[in-house]
Amino acid sequence: MESRKAIILFSGGLDSTTVLHHALSKGYKCIALTIDYNQRHRYEIESSKKYLKKFNIESYIFKIDLTQIGGSALTDNKIDVPSISSSGIPVTYVPARNTIFLSIASAYAEIMSVENIFIGVNQIDFSGYPDCRPEFINSFEGTINLGTKLGSEEGLLNINAPLINMSKKDIIKYGYSLGIDYSLTVSCYNLDDHGRACGSCDSCQFRRQGFELAGIADPTNYIN
Amino acid sequence: MESRKAIILFSGGLDSTTVLHHALSKGYKCIALTIDYNQRHRYEIESSKKYLKKFNIESYIFKIDLTQIGGSALTDNKIDVPSISSSGIPVTYVPARNTIFLSIASAYAEIMSVENIFIGVNQIDFSGYPDCRPEFINSFEGTINLGTKLGSEEGLLNINAPLINMSKKDIIKYGYSLGIDYSLTVSCYNLDDHGRACGSCDSCQFRRQGFELAGIADPTNYIN
Repeated sequence: MESRKAIILFSGGLDSTTVLHHALSKGYKCIALTIDYNQRHRYEIESSKKYLKKFNIESYIFKIDLTQIGGSALTDNKIDVPSISSSGIPVTYVPARNTIFLSIASAYAEIMSVENIFIGVNQIDFSGYPDCRPEFINSFEGTINLGTKLGSEEGLLNINAPLINMSKKDIIKYGYSLGIDYSLTVSCYNLDDHGRACGSCDSCQFRRQGFELAGIADPTNYIN
Repeated sequence: MESRKAIILFSGGLDSTTVLHHALSKGYKCIALTIDYNQRHRYEIESSKKYLKKFNIESYIFKIDLTQIGGSALTDNKIDVPSISSSGIPVTYVPARNTIFLSIASAYAEIMSVENIFIGVNQIDFSGYPDCRPEFINSFEGTINLGTKLGSEEGLLNINAPLINMSKKDIIKYGYSLGIDYSLTVSCYNLDDHGRACGSCDSCQFRRQGFELAGIADPTNYIN
C-alpha cells in the first residue's frame, strides 16, 4: 500500500485544480483522473490535458458516455444550460454523477493500491447538487470500503474533500496562496469556440463572485 | 413517482434472471438494464438481449468499458479465468463493479422516477466478492439516497437484493417454482464459440452444484 499516493478527480476547473495543488503541497504523489463523460463542455477535457502536461502529473482519462442516460443540461443536448440560477436543484445536475465518478476512481485506487482519493466538491457557493454535501461523501467512503477488496481486506480507502466547507472566495484565496494561476482553469459550462467563458451560467456566476469577494482580479476571459 | 416500476440489473445469468421473474411475480413493471462493460464473456450481452425480447421486457444497454481500468480476469485479457477456485477474493473480482453498476442504475432510476432497483447478488455459494454482501447493499442504499435528487428530494430509492441470503440450490428451486427455463440463462465466464459452458470456472461450479443439490436436472450445455 502506497499511502502517499493520491488519485485526484480532475476536471481542470477552479475547484479540482485547487485540490490538486493542495494534495501536492501535502506531499502526495498525485495521479489525476479525468472523466470524459461526453459532457457538453468538451473544452474541459482538452484544458485538463494541457494543464496536467504542464505540471508533469501522471494522468488517466476514463470514458463513460453519460449521454446514454441524459437527464441533465450537461449530458442532454435537448436541455439548455440556463443563464439564470433557478431555485432547488438545477438542470445542470447530472444524475448520480459523483457516485459514478467516485466509484470509478475507487476502482483505479484499488488496482493501483492507492488509499487516498481527492475530490473538489464543496457545499457552499455551489449549485445545490446533493452529491456535493459532506454527508454524501462520508457515506460513500463507508460504502466503498465495504464494496471493494481494498477496503474490505487491505485497509481504509479515504475519500478526501478538503474544500467541502469552503466558500468560493476562500478557495480562491487558498489557491492563490498555493501559487495557482487560475487563468489556466475553466469553469464555464458554455464556452465559445475561442475558449471564452459565457459569464452568465451558474458556474461562471459563482466564479466571478468568488474573485470579487476575494478582492483578487479575475483572470477569466469572459464574453461579457 | 411510479412505485410499481422497477429497474433490474440484468446479465442473463441464473441469478439476475431469477430476480427478474421474482420482481415480475410481485407485480412490478420491469425495466431491464444490462451493463456492457466489455466483459470477456461477450455472449452474456447477446443472450440477455434474446431473453428480454422473448419476454417482451423494456430494456436498456449501458456501455462502460471497464477494460480501461482492468485488474480482473473478466476485464483484462492478460489475466486468465482460473478453472480451480482459489481461497480469498478471486481474480474474477472486478474492482468496484457493483458500486459502479448500482450508481448507473440509480442514474436511470432518477431520470425515470423509478424507486426500486433489483440486483441478483447473493452472499452464499458465491465467489467471495465484497460487493455481494448485505452490509454493502445496505450501505449503498444509504449513500445513493444522499447523493441523488431522487433520494434527497422525492423519497426513498430502494436497492432490493432478494437473493442475498439464498443458496444457489434455493435460488434454483425458487426459480423453478416461478417457471423459469434455466436452459436460456448463461453463467459461464468461458463460453466457447458454440455457446457451451466450460463446466469448470467458479461460476459453472456453483451452478452445477446448485442443480445437483436442488435435485433438478441441469439443462446447461457443458463442454465437459
